[in-house]
Amino acid sequence: MEIRDVIHGSVRIERWELPVIDSRFFQRLRQIKQLGFAEHSFPSATHNRYIHSLGTLHTAGLAFESIFGGHGGPLRTDASQIDRKIRLESLAPQAFERLRAVVRLAALLHDIGHGPLSHTTEFAMPDVAKLEVPGKAALKRQATHEDYTLKIILDSSLTPKLEAAGKIWGFTPQHIASLIDPEIQIDDDFFQETLHGETIDFQPILKQLISSELDADRMDYLRRDSLHAGVSYGQFDFEWLVSNLTSSISEGKAYLTLEHRALYSFEDFLISRFHMFLMVYFHYKSIVFDSMLGEYMRSPDCEYQLPSDIESYCDFNDAHLSAHLAQSSNEWARRITDKRPYRMLMELHSGIPATRTSAIEQKALLKETLADLKRQEIHTLTATSTSELSKYFRKPGAPIFVRYDNHYSAESRIPLEQCTDLFNRYSEKRSITRVYVSPENYPRCRFQGRTAPLKYEDIQHDSDGPLFDHGGD
Amino acid sequence: MEIRDVIHGSVRIERWELPVIDSRFFQRLRQIKQLGFAEHSFPSATHNRYIHSLGTLHTAGLAFESIFGGHGGPLRTDASQIDRKIRLESLAPQAFERLRAVVRLAALLHDIGHGPLSHTTEFAMPDVAKLEVPGKAALKRQATHEDYTLKIILDSSLTPKLEAAGKIWGFTPQHIASLIDPEIQIDDDFFQETLHGETIDFQPILKQLISSELDADRMDYLRRDSLHAGVSYGQFDFEWLVSNLTSSISEGKAYLTLEHRALYSFEDFLISRFHMFLMVYFHYKSIVFDSMLGEYMRSPDCEYQLPSDIESYCDFNDAHLSAHLAQSSNEWARRITDKRPYRMLMELHSGIPATRTSAIEQKALLKETLADLKRQEIHTLTATSTSELSKYFRKPGAPIFVRYDNHYSAESRIPLEQCTDLFNRYSEKRSITRVYVSPENYPRCRFQGRTAPLKYEDIQHDSDGPLFDHGGD
Amino acid sequence: MEIRDVIHGSVRIERWELPVIDSRFFQRLRQIKQLGFAEHSFPSATHNRYIHSLGTLHTAGLAFESIFGGHGGPLRTDASQIDRKIRLESLAPQAFERLRAVVRLAALLHDIGHGPLSHTTEFAMPDVAKLEVPGKAALKRQATHEDYTLKIILDSSLTPKLEAAGKIWGFTPQHIASLIDPEIQIDDDFFQETLHGETIDFQPILKQLISSELDADRMDYLRRDSLHAGVSYGQFDFEWLVSNLTSSISEGKAYLTLEHRALYSFEDFLISRFHMFLMVYFHYKSIVFDSMLGEYMRSPDCEYQLPSDIESYCDFNDAHLSAHLAQSSNEWARRITDKRPYRMLMELHSGIPATRTSAIEQKALLKETLADLKRQEIHTLTATSTSELSKYFRKPGAPIFVRYDNHYSAESRIPLEQCTDLFNRYSEKRSITRVYVSPENYPRCRFQGRTAPLKYEDIQHDSDGPLFDHGGD
Amino acid sequence: MEIRDVIHGSVRIERWELPVIDSRFFQRLRQIKQLGFAEHSFPSATHNRYIHSLGTLHTAGLAFESIFGGHGGPLRTDASQIDRKIRLESLAPQAFERLRAVVRLAALLHDIGHGPLSHTTEFAMPDVAKLEVPGKAALKRQATHEDYTLKIILDSSLTPKLEAAGKIWGFTPQHIASLIDPEIQIDDDFFQETLHGETIDFQPILKQLISSELDADRMDYLRRDSLHAGVSYGQFDFEWLVSNLTSSISEGKAYLTLEHRALYSFEDFLISRFHMFLMVYFHYKSIVFDSMLGEYMRSPDCEYQLPSDIESYCDFNDAHLSAHLAQSSNEWARRITDKRPYRMLMELHSGIPATRTSAIEQKALLKETLADLKRQEIHTLTATSTSELSKYFRKPGAPIFVRYDNHYSAESRIPLEQCTDLFNRYSEKRSITRVYVSPENYPRCRFQGRTAPLKYEDIQHDSDGPLFDHGGD
Repeated sequence: MEIRDVIHGSVRIERWELPVIDSRFFQRLRQIKQLGFAEHSFPSATHNRYIHSLGTLHTAGLAFESIFGGHGGPLRTDASQIDRKIRLESLAPQAFERLRAVVRLAALLHDIGHGPLSHTTEFAMPDVAKLEVPGKAALKRQATHEDYTLKIILDSSLTPKLEAAGKIWGFTPQHIASLIDPEIQIDDDFFQETLHGETIDFQPILKQLISSELDADRMDYLRRDSLHAGVSYGQFDFEWLVSNLTSSISEGKAYLTLEHRALYSFEDFLISRFHMFLMVYFHYKSIVFDSMLGEYMRSPDCEYQLPSDIESYCDFNDAHLSAHLAQSSNEWARRITDKRPYRMLMELHSGIPATRTSAIEQKALLKETLADLKRQEIHTLTATSTSELSKYFRKPGAPIFVRYDNHYSAESRIPLEQCTDLFNRYSEKRSITRVYVSPENYPRCRFQGRTAPLKYEDIQHDSDGPLFDHGGD
Repeated sequence: MEIRDVIHGSVRIERWELPVIDSRFFQRLRQIKQLGFAEHSFPSATHNRYIHSLGTLHTAGLAFESIFGGHGGPLRTDASQIDRKIRLESLAPQAFERLRAVVRLAALLHDIGHGPLSHTTEFAMPDVAKLEVPGKAALKRQATHEDYTLKIILDSSLTPKLEAAGKIWGFTPQHIASLIDPEIQIDDDFFQETLHGETIDFQPILKQLISSELDADRMDYLRRDSLHAGVSYGQFDFEWLVSNLTSSISEGKAYLTLEHRALYSFEDFLISRFHMFLMVYFHYKSIVFDSMLGEYMRSPDCEYQLPSDIESYCDFNDAHLSAHLAQSSNEWARRITDKRPYRMLMELHSGIPATRTSAIEQKALLKETLADLKRQEIHTLTATSTSELSKYFRKPGAPIFVRYDNHYSAESRIPLEQCTDLFNRYSEKRSITRVYVSPENYPRCRFQGRTAPLKYEDIQHDSDGPLFDHGGD
Repeated sequence: MEIRDVIHGSVRIERWELPVIDSRFFQRLRQIKQLGFAEHSFPSATHNRYIHSLGTLHTAGLAFESIFGGHGGPLRTDASQIDRKIRLESLAPQAFERLRAVVRLAALLHDIGHGPLSHTTEFAMPDVAKLEVPGKAALKRQATHEDYTLKIILDSSLTPKLEAAGKIWGFTPQHIASLIDPEIQIDDDFFQETLHGETIDFQPILKQLISSELDADRMDYLRRDSLHAGVSYGQFDFEWLVSNLTSSISEGKAYLTLEHRALYSFEDFLISRFHMFLMVYFHYKSIVFDSMLGEYMRSPDCEYQLPSDIESYCDFNDAHLSAHLAQSSNEWARRITDKRPYRMLMELHSGIPATRTSAIEQKALLKETLADLKRQEIHTLTATSTSELSKYFRKPGAPIFVRYDNHYSAESRIPLEQCTDLFNRYSEKRSITRVYVSPENYPRCRFQGRTAPLKYEDIQHDSDGPLFDHGGD
Repeated sequence: MEIRDVIHGSVRIERWELPVIDSRFFQRLRQIKQLGFAEHSFPSATHNRYIHSLGTLHTAGLAFESIFGGHGGPLRTDASQIDRKIRLESLAPQAFERLRAVVRLAALLHDIGHGPLSHTTEFAMPDVAKLEVPGKAALKRQATHEDYTLKIILDSSLTPKLEAAGKIWGFTPQHIASLIDPEIQIDDDFFQETLHGETIDFQPILKQLISSELDADRMDYLRRDSLHAGVSYGQFDFEWLVSNLTSSISEGKAYLTLEHRALYSFEDFLISRFHMFLMVYFHYKSIVFDSMLGEYMRSPDCEYQLPSDIESYCDFNDAHLSAHLAQSSNEWARRITDKRPYRMLMELHSGIPATRTSAIEQKALLKETLADLKRQEIHTLTATSTSELSKYFRKPGAPIFVRYDNHYSAESRIPLEQCTDLFNRYSEKRSITRVYVSPENYPRCRFQGRTAPLKYEDIQHDSDGPLFDHGGD
């Protein structure tokens, strides 16, 4: 079966994937918007996690086929490529098929436990113990959407459907979950295959296709969110990036690897995400709605609770949350429902201006403004949104390699972060701090601060480190 | 009249611009490819400087209208914007029309003197004295394409057509030229207008629309070259960037200014250009053809000479150069004509890997390889291509401002380079060095160097500055 | 203010339009999907009537500006165009502004009364008398979404906001409504303007921009639905079409007019719509969901009723309908909620094959199949979807003209339908008839009919008229 | 190897295809513009036959893989499809590979003999006998570009390269040529394969991929020309059309077949081509340049001759023709070179208005106007451009089938022209007749005819056949 998609054109679905897609849990994603409140600023951005999840399955499949595909026979192969690519498709067709099947399902389900609207609803999640996630019974903390994802895969009415699909290829829901959650261990040899006498574990690279600096999730959502928002920031050279993926074997394990000729494409891709945060995901209107939802979730009279009964979770979608808010008399719920958000009074961007003292001045201005407003008994919402280039860099984890071939010396396999100084160049986070007041108060405080512009005369660039202290974020 | 364009849709041409476009000098640009030899790597990239020049006229017009347009009356204006925008269109409609007319023509003609194919043909240009460019008679150096541009505008069969167009609005070819060449001075008050008792000189901002970090030239060619090459690097948020342009007055002069809400769009735009260089303009095939053309131009038997008679220059286009090369027996001319380029033997990217010692190792490898090949009497072409983020930053010049408004304090007008640390982050240039050998020699040296891979084991990130020495570039 | 849109890029909103857009009635459109159930087949198609309505406002504005804009002064005008265009913008700027304002608001509100999901919910509308639409009190029939539209414009909490906007320009909600509903009469001279001594009534052309063969509604939704569905059928040459709109005066009234050089663009546009129906709007999955919703609406136990209290109508959106269906025990409501639709058993396309006898054979096959299934006590849903090229042609109404200029003889203004034979060529409707059965019954009847293929051997093309009788549709 | 293309993204080239692409004959196509003079009206349309030919190879490959690909094993196949598709890729992998190889090469070379610029240069071709095309020695007529194509494939320096490529797969240049030219016969069994005991001849379907109503040539050029021209007419649902291609066996021969669910996509595709002719290919400026080139070619002093020596033909490209024209003193050559084309005085579209008498009136007007101008000794160029929906319909040839499956009765395979009445609906050709005069004469005759507008009052639609007589075209 094929599904038409605005990003990928045609998304082909395999026979055994259909029952999973038709399940109540997956269909629930139709009712969860990908960008939550962002449609207030970008009204075309009404796409949901359903189509994003299908797009992620498709992207993971394309990436997998790019890495391991190819017949490798004498007729259709460029001889110079023989030594550098693991052509599973011809070397071990069964392994190719079964690994492709499991990684596509993991990609499809990576978001299955997502709460309504945005991460803010995680405030309403129960204790993880109550959720009875296999292997997590003893934990003492609030559940997260990742816990819901595991529960749905491993222990819900979806589980038998996954078992049925896995039976064809020899895997279980546990195998799928192990590609999504780092704590799930697999003891059997499903992910292993012996090639030319060497046994290789393919689990690491499959995990990387699900979550890493170059994962299928991100490759799908950037282009999708960008198109729907009507902006260009999220566009990158998708086809080139995917077609230049390959694998490296290190100590018997396979890792995601990028041909060096796509290294600048990768940098462009990283920066795409960075700019999408600053220009779309952190739009001041989305942020204030999210803040107000948070206020509601933390209100004493909040009655919104996500269920620990996993089957009931199917009913908790965006429309259900909206209906809940609509019948509440809580102030924040009312403001959200009636679309009467707090208005932005002040907006400070870290590093503007890029003076020695701007961080200090900004902090002082913020502090003074908030004190002023407090004195006048004007209630404020303050939100700081921080974007960083990479959430994986500097964290321990499986390496992504670059295959660097200067065509003359022998090739090298170099860890990605040692091939680009982009991570260093962007090591500073960029943050936007906003102060909002109610629309009722807005007119009387709007122009209060208008007399004192920021100074920028004595700007100097020094080498002794960043000036802006993000500590408070 | 309207011209259909793949980038801008419809490009409207004014009545007085038509004779300029129909002139022999402008029509000559149809025969000069925008990307020269790049069509060897990107065969869809056959677009010419003719359509790019029309696109630049259109972009300059859009930018101008965004900056100075708007009726500003009580009915259609957002009151909060009244104080921050100079609405020439309603304040001084005649000034609006005449400045729009002159900046569009300057944009149209910014490339009119370009030599065939690429900058490499500048080797074949005569002494500037022979060209008899008004005001440059005394110079002692080889002419450049900028000299040809001035000559064509100020002293050719095109000049009367420009005079005719300018007559309608009160400008001369000299005024057009002054927006393109910083050395052309204007003594009259054509660029000045008195608003609210203050006389403002608009020449600086018009010059910036023609050449600056945010000029119309670049805003057109990035999107155009990107589309034709079939890549995404050159895409940026054109509409947002243009609609957030405004002006600042400093000491009686108007300068280009960006609303701060488009600051990240500007960063994206800068990086777009950076990546276009690395992925498209520096493609190894374009580079080798350009190198071979350079070899020919410097050969003792080269007979290609660009004429000092400006009217004859109309006949010197890409086809004429190809015809010239085709009848030559010079080895390099033959290789270009027969499409038998030197082949790439080795390619070194600065900063890959990003080790302390990689620059030193790369230099050593390059030196050793070249010595090796020389010993074997194998002729080489070596080319280094260097990309930098900005060619204007750190150079003295008219400032671009950012209008920063935190909505609470009074607005600031901050110089652009003090609003983004991108220039610092990308202060290092990125370079690619390649060694090419003839296809006849290629088979016997191809695998010679294959035994010694680059080391990357001892990689450390230090804080004491860049390690890669670009001195040799 | 500007809104980012995936189709138009930036949509500029005027100051007086904002309160209308922020109203509860307009915000309700956020919760009504443009394509209803189509997201089951085209999961990217989640866009709503909110953004479509904004897009229609924008398109109506562009069309209006193309028709009446232009300064017409000696400097910027092509002399040959002077005689054929009514340049209201320079001749009567106030008229230009006020007519532009009213037509944009009418475009914005053309869909404001739309019921949840699709036209099927009109079954749940009250008697029109109960709705108390001004001027329609005496009617005896069920209300339609057009009645709701009028009620909301003329007599709801939105009305004062429209009055406030209209006050600036001299119009009332009645004027807006008169552009949407042909029965609303206007007695004053708001739509009239005297030019060169002749009084011209501009109401007809404004009405045509709201609904006609070339209206802003259609020009927006075709491109939008096409993009979101991931298909190309709805793409047409929007820019060319809009820029070739002008006006004709006939008996003191202004009518929509197309330059003949865009006539083939118009044909392409008409066919775009025709193909969107066949390929997207009539997708078999959308159709069956719509049929099931109809079954529910007509069930005796259906409790869904749209309110006659217009303020309550704000709460009736897609989510509210879904919630209603979810709590019902009606079979059809359950099938919709649980996504267990009837499955397609048979599909017949009129005119395939195009034999003399295919219509007769298809009818016989349909009759026989339904009888067969009835005999087996298998319940069926049968749906026929019929597409016609034009819904305006052959109906009396204001003419659209083509300005035909052979450049030599004097120009002609010819009614559109006399300028293209497309209406005749496509005079036959195209219809698709489908039979659906429950998924429970599907397996046992699926292959029953497989033995008797349609014959197509004796195909003859005759000139004596269409063979397929659409009477039963 | 991969080539970046603006239409297809990445075009993969096989190892054995590279020497063909690198040959002088194929590289010559770089210098032949796809749309000839159209760049005068659409300046972005500078793309050449080189990239179009690569795109055709790619499209033919995609279509072939869609038709015959698929592993068909138990794991990845939808059971219901087993009976209706010939999965050569799994049934006979060698046949799949060899047929794919030959059809791609035929697609690559379908235009290899094209003359410079446009078909107009065929006037300058020698007698076919002189060209010594194998098998055509005895013919007595002027050569066409098809003759050059055959000569280049069968008897030139390219032939050994084709033999080398064919050797891998068992075919000869003769086999390639047989897919392009209907007169080339193949006696061996290269195109045959025995499946399930039945021997099937695949040559017919491969020929159809090269030239038919649904060929790869057209599927490539429509989208490409449309994009470069900056219009939307040529866009169609490429992916859907290609993915719904399959094959039918009739009397031991395989024919191109379309799934009926893509029938309306096919109609859209046909109409795309029709509109591209009317809006792009017949642009009045392209037409007049072509007419002037024709005048030159027929002038007694024309010295342009295409060579019968096939190797010399490599030098005859657009630039060579331009250079030839530039040195000529012939009036038409001068006008082309100096871009001083005749100007359009009158333009008549058949069927506008669609009256009974419009054809007669138009003829009379044309006759009278030409007589008038002749009397005044004003020279004219008259050109009639005629577009028809289909050039294959009503001609004998291999059938294209539609696989029509109403899901209930047994499937049918119906000839395409019996599945759509589009051919009948568009049976009338559409033509545009233009009269041009020299720019010198234009001012004095421009307004001569302005007094007598065409009548359109008595319009009636009759059923007794088309009124416009195209006989004169």
